[in-house]
Amino acid sequence: MTMIDFASLYAAPTPAPTPSWAGFPRYNFVGGHNDPQAIPVDELAAAASRVIHERGRTLATYHSDSGPLGDLSLRRFVADRLRSRSGGSVTPDEVLITAGSWQGIQLIAELLVAPGDTVLVEQHSFQHVINLLRGRQAEIIGIPMDNGGMRIDALATVLEDLRRRGVSAKFVYTIPTLQNPTTTVLELPRRRELLALSAAHGVPVFEDECYADLIWEGERPPALLGLDEERKVLHIGSFSKCLAPALRLGYLVAPSEVVQRLVTLKGDAGIGVLEQMVTAEYFSRHYQTHVDRLRNGLRLKLQVLVSALNEHFGTSAEFQVPRGGMFLWVRLPEGVDTRTLVAPAGEAGVAFDDGPSWSVDGDGARRYLRLCFALPNESDIYDGIARLAEVFHRETGIPPRSANIER
Amino acid sequence: MTMIDFASLYAAPTPAPTPSWAGFPRYNFVGGHNDPQAIPVDELAAAASRVIHERGRTLATYHSDSGPLGDLSLRRFVADRLRSRSGGSVTPDEVLITAGSWQGIQLIAELLVAPGDTVLVEQHSFQHVINLLRGRQAEIIGIPMDNGGMRIDALATVLEDLRRRGVSAKFVYTIPTLQNPTTTVLELPRRRELLALSAAHGVPVFEDECYADLIWEGERPPALLGLDEERKVLHIGSFSKCLAPALRLGYLVAPSEVVQRLVTLKGDAGIGVLEQMVTAEYFSRHYQTHVDRLRNGLRLKLQVLVSALNEHFGTSAEFQVPRGGMFLWVRLPEGVDTRTLVAPAGEAGVAFDDGPSWSVDGDGARRYLRLCFALPNESDIYDGIARLAEVFHRETGIPPRSANIER
Repeated sequence: MTMIDFASLYAAPTPAPTPSWAGFPRYNFVGGHNDPQAIPVDELAAAASRVIHERGRTLATYHSDSGPLGDLSLRRFVADRLRSRSGGSVTPDEVLITAGSWQGIQLIAELLVAPGDTVLVEQHSFQHVINLLRGRQAEIIGIPMDNGGMRIDALATVLEDLRRRGVSAKFVYTIPTLQNPTTTVLELPRRRELLALSAAHGVPVFEDECYADLIWEGERPPALLGLDEERKVLHIGSFSKCLAPALRLGYLVAPSEVVQRLVTLKGDAGIGVLEQMVTAEYFSRHYQTHVDRLRNGLRLKLQVLVSALNEHFGTSAEFQVPRGGMFLWVRLPEGVDTRTLVAPAGEAGVAFDDGPSWSVDGDGARRYLRLCFALPNESDIYDGIARLAEVFHRETGIPPRSANIER
Repeated sequence: MTMIDFASLYAAPTPAPTPSWAGFPRYNFVGGHNDPQAIPVDELAAAASRVIHERGRTLATYHSDSGPLGDLSLRRFVADRLRSRSGGSVTPDEVLITAGSWQGIQLIAELLVAPGDTVLVEQHSFQHVINLLRGRQAEIIGIPMDNGGMRIDALATVLEDLRRRGVSAKFVYTIPTLQNPTTTVLELPRRRELLALSAAHGVPVFEDECYADLIWEGERPPALLGLDEERKVLHIGSFSKCLAPALRLGYLVAPSEVVQRLVTLKGDAGIGVLEQMVTAEYFSRHYQTHVDRLRNGLRLKLQVLVSALNEHFGTSAEFQVPRGGMFLWVRLPEGVDTRTLVAPAGEAGVAFDDGPSWSVDGDGARRYLRLCFALPNESDIYDGIARLAEVFHRETGIPPRSANIER
């Protein structure tokens, strides 16, 4: 006889149950997973051993010896890297180490966004940001994009319109480099125009640079943070994409007054310091070598993905080959709705992201899908795309035929 | 000219700024810090190196290879330890790895406690739990305690009274073993009575066992979780006290239906897996040796603390010498209010916790203070207590004299 009924005790709104984990799908093109072959096992083990011998005793205190912003060695690494690649003058006191960049996003949203507040977001954007802002009952305005990323003329129009209506937006959230999901890169002139608009309207830029390390073709423009003389950009980055997501390490850079409020909101007694120490120790010696090696591996996987799509989807799959990163944004012919294809593909062991989930205006992106390529090996990429083509053909008639099989 | 004013953009209520970190006080008797000398530097480094070589590539995926509940090796360790020391039959699917036990507390509060809900808590309890529940606008009822911990007769009276009023409490939060701050241990008969009351009233027990590994004198009673045949106890534990708080690792054990809701609330894309792997690898080989060594060190520090108090406070400081743990709960003579002594002690470099902060009925604990002794070394414990006696004497006339100095 059970006398305690938990269901009757839940506070409203009751969260939905998360189903038991069933492992990853066979052909896994979802999630920002990294390339297992690129994990620098030997050097990471050596870094861990070294740093535990040197600093392990500091793990006995909350926040080790560095206070609530995070391990000083990692904050210094972040500040130095930002300075050396983007200019500006970030200090470790303006860096907050977070549990992945995701915690930084949650904190900024909690600090700034109340129900009814207006926020500006690229029209296609990180699914979880869109959902988080919806959950906070924000008015989300999607800014149109083209092959060069956010259209600054469109942003200007939106900001003018808001000014006329007396509305002050809370921020412009942007992923300027290897935008998620479109992979576009905002070039320097647009970056400067964006910052000028931000200053003119008093609306901060919230810059998510979590993929920027993975650019391998063409120039990498400086971060908006580094270009902003007023130092008012809210900036987040991640070690998930340039090292390993299971470390759950990211960072947030903001003016000290903002960081001090965010620390109060954070209230988690800090981020695991061992992972911070190890990452700082490893990257202080191997950052460039590691990122070069990682990019080379991703570039090869992208080539396989592009070949597989060309072979199995032919002209039905349109895309701009990205200058880096770990995903591809693909457009299918008019009439396809990728939302209807997620379940049948899943049954065939293939997971992908439908376009509407990554879009402020869901319906407008129904022809799109996002394919992440860092995790599957090259043969799984090839086979997975072949299967996907089969499922799509069966469900929609598109692609009409593949290289191997007349349908 | 600054065009962006963050202060005008904050959502209400604006969090207070956290002041810049100024380092630890010279004589630090606050916070659940551990003993730096007990950090097993060599074995931990070896475990890290081993496990990164063996499983490092799994860090490339979110949640590594174990899903959102946490690393399977660590969940197995938790389930095995609970079973072997307390009986019962916890499975890894009922274990959720959390960012310290603190995240477990936050999750349970979020799942169960709405404004106006009633919760039962030992009259002296973990400061942050009291504050969290106040923040959620709960009605907190403090259950009277004696030298044996929570008084079950008093709990029965409260539950009867609530039943008469038609109020269903959300849980009874208890730290049954080495209670924080009183260090009391709830013996087996009271544990059984508590579980019987819980079942009879349909009010779950929320058991916080985070200090229980540190008991070194007398029997360690089984966890309430292990005694509960209905398996309805919500249970949390921590690796902060038995290993290192800066790892930020804890765990929560609950029925699967509850765990699945909590995972949804958690929404943090997992806890750092490197720390989970390393902890599981280290403890799978060295758990008992480590805890024995840690306890021996703490026991010595406690002896120094007790000697220093006897020497410098004499009969003015009354306390029950605890059977383990990392803090002492001290009562001063009538008329002293420890809240007024925190600031002057701080100026003298000594930090301690005043009683009212660790009490549901603040005023009723004004004669008490809590002294944590794991972090300071033995000479700092001795000198710190001498200084504290000086400050207290100067401010209150108590203690009237010390061993060395006629005041």
